Amino acid sequence: MKKNNRIYLDHAATSPMEAETIQVVMRTMETGFGNPSAMYMEGQQAMGEMQRARESIGKSLGVDYKTIFFTANGSEAANQAIISAAYSGKKTGRTHLISSQIEHPCVLKTLEYLKEEGFTYTLLPVDSKGHVQLADLEEAFTPNTCLVSIMHTNNEIGSIQPISKIGQWCKEKKVLFHCDGTQAMNSSRLTILDDEMDYFTFSAHKIGGPRGVGILYKKKTAPLQSLIFGGMQERGRRAGTENVAEIVGAAFALERNMQEIDNQIQHKRELDNRLMEGLLRISDVCVNADDVNRAPGILNISFLGINAKLLVLLLDAQGIAVSTGSACASGSLELSYVLEALGCTKENAQGAIRISCGKENTLEEMETVILRVEEAIKQLRGNK
Amino acid sequence: MKKNNRIYLDHAATSPMEAETIQVVMRTMETGFGNPSAMYMEGQQAMGEMQRARESIGKSLGVDYKTIFFTANGSEAANQAIISAAYSGKKTGRTHLISSQIEHPCVLKTLEYLKEEGFTYTLLPVDSKGHVQLADLEEAFTPNTCLVSIMHTNNEIGSIQPISKIGQWCKEKKVLFHCDGTQAMNSSRLTILDDEMDYFTFSAHKIGGPRGVGILYKKKTAPLQSLIFGGMQERGRRAGTENVAEIVGAAFALERNMQEIDNQIQHKRELDNRLMEGLLRISDVCVNADDVNRAPGILNISFLGINAKLLVLLLDAQGIAVSTGSACASGSLELSYVLEALGCTKENAQGAIRISCGKENTLEEMETVILRVEEAIKQLRGNK
Repeated sequence: MKKNNRIYLDHAATSPMEAETIQVVMRTMETGFGNPSAMYMEGQQAMGEMQRARESIGKSLGVDYKTIFFTANGSEAANQAIISAAYSGKKTGRTHLISSQIEHPCVLKTLEYLKEEGFTYTLLPVDSKGHVQLADLEEAFTPNTCLVSIMHTNNEIGSIQPISKIGQWCKEKKVLFHCDGTQAMNSSRLTILDDEMDYFTFSAHKIGGPRGVGILYKKKTAPLQSLIFGGMQERGRRAGTENVAEIVGAAFALERNMQEIDNQIQHKRELDNRLMEGLLRISDVCVNADDVNRAPGILNISFLGINAKLLVLLLDAQGIAVSTGSACASGSLELSYVLEALGCTKENAQGAIRISCGKENTLEEMETVILRVEEAIKQLRGNK
Repeated sequence: MKKNNRIYLDHAATSPMEAETIQVVMRTMETGFGNPSAMYMEGQQAMGEMQRARESIGKSLGVDYKTIFFTANGSEAANQAIISAAYSGKKTGRTHLISSQIEHPCVLKTLEYLKEEGFTYTLLPVDSKGHVQLADLEEAFTPNTCLVSIMHTNNEIGSIQPISKIGQWCKEKKVLFHCDGTQAMNSSRLTILDDEMDYFTFSAHKIGGPRGVGILYKKKTAPLQSLIFGGMQERGRRAGTENVAEIVGAAFALERNMQEIDNQIQHKRELDNRLMEGLLRISDVCVNADDVNRAPGILNISFLGINAKLLVLLLDAQGIAVSTGSACASGSLELSYVLEALGCTKENAQGAIRISCGKENTLEEMETVILRVEEAIKQLRGNK
């Protein structure tokens, strides 16, 4: 949704909802307002809406609807998968977890919590393009490892991990595998293969869905314990009256996303290419992460000698919304730990912005962006 | 919202949203879609919407907005308050909690979880009208008690607890007090007094707000730890991109609720009185819970010799939605533990339905309900 001629380029933080999706939520707030646990018509209607949404999401992901659980957001879904696997492992003395240095805070902070509870973990390094190496995973593995948690697509730099290989490796080693797919759904055509993962988690709001829905796929054999205790909603795995309207909106947004994904990928790649072509003409600039195994629509680019926060503010004043990296970390003054893991210099990291396109962005907008970035960099570099 | 001439009488399970509240959510999905953690205009707009909502809720409850934290629902809010108090107590060796036999599952199940983690708890009995006795609280108290958690209004029978007295007693004893107010907000004029409680939790959807918002008040001195780990949202106490649109809708619904509450109380009392007058004319019937310290709009009534589930289905077929008790427990075949705690006979409990009125119900509808219940009871009792 374009407002007041703004150019919104932070789709990796959140995506606007389309008018049609908002209408779906609104309609369901009226027709599906009942409590799905109730026996009477209004309750059964709401339960029906939930069921259709769950089936639709299962179909979109290529899995049985019974493997789909709803939470309130992607962070909660990832927390629940990791904590479930950890405590299940603990029962047989396996208390070691493996993840990577560039995971989202919802994974890293959960690991820190588990460490306080007596677990240990290893964070795999990534190469200069942001990719985990299978050799490092093999080295980190111990007989006590109960879970490997690796994100599909990094939210700051867009690097895509070799998930299939990691998943198959985990299967051979009989260790549970969680894939954080929050950043993946709008940039990859993705279905879930039972052979490849035990848990897959993501949120609706990064694919144009509403804000209060996280989706957790779990393989039938994978353990899942509650984080929130109370009623028997979500087959006893997530208490609290269901957010039916937003769940129905999430299913709608995911369905649409899957219909459009091939076009979206191509469109975003074109936008990225035009941006790169234009921005790389600026002096002392580099793209963080690979161009091959990188998600279209996430471009992380460093302008040396620049304070990226000032650049973001200057562009904002010119009607362009980009970010310095993850919104979840942008409150902090520290430099990006993701760029640090790539081996970026401090200067590179300080001058890095993330430009993340959505389907509604146009090539024409990219011309404006290139022009405005050029001007802003000149201004910030004192017209040098 | 009345649909197809249905008479919806399960407001204790959930309340329909008014058209205006839905519009507020919808508008915010458009104008406040940005990520509140982001620096640019769209992010700051969303952050502003969040801030205004938090201030409005603080004002509605009579407390500083900084004491308000958002979760995804009432169950999560209650879980978080109880778990925070428990682990804070544990640091000084205080691992005993006190609650009551008629709390919501989101409290009771959390206590069960804590028991597995090494805590102990005592559940206070209630009298035949559903009220906790201060003498029982005094008796249950030990030097190791770290939290007392008592609901304001029971969701099945409407009994209102002596919260002020309990709160003041807890303050004297220097023990934390959590009040589950989920069922209270649409039937009592309630502001939060720092003197009386350390935590107060409730959900938006029982006051005509959207489904995905829980509200947690915590006194400034009360501990609060995360249940969901990740980004620094909610001052580091609840990770995950904020559900801005629903939070704004929740603030709107609460504001309206506070404006209307006195009229609502009077209106619901009139509806209850008419219902009681009519239904108590049926033979072998009794009201569960007191008429004095009972919330208007929750009437729990037993028809002896009746299977309440059949009664609910018969009434449903006649266009009337009532329930057999808590929606959160209605999936189970067991009888209500709340009615059991009152000392109800099995026969009484089996024949109990809950009729919970909302502001949109009318006296005329109550006449229809009385008539239809009479007919249904006759039918179920074999026209005896």
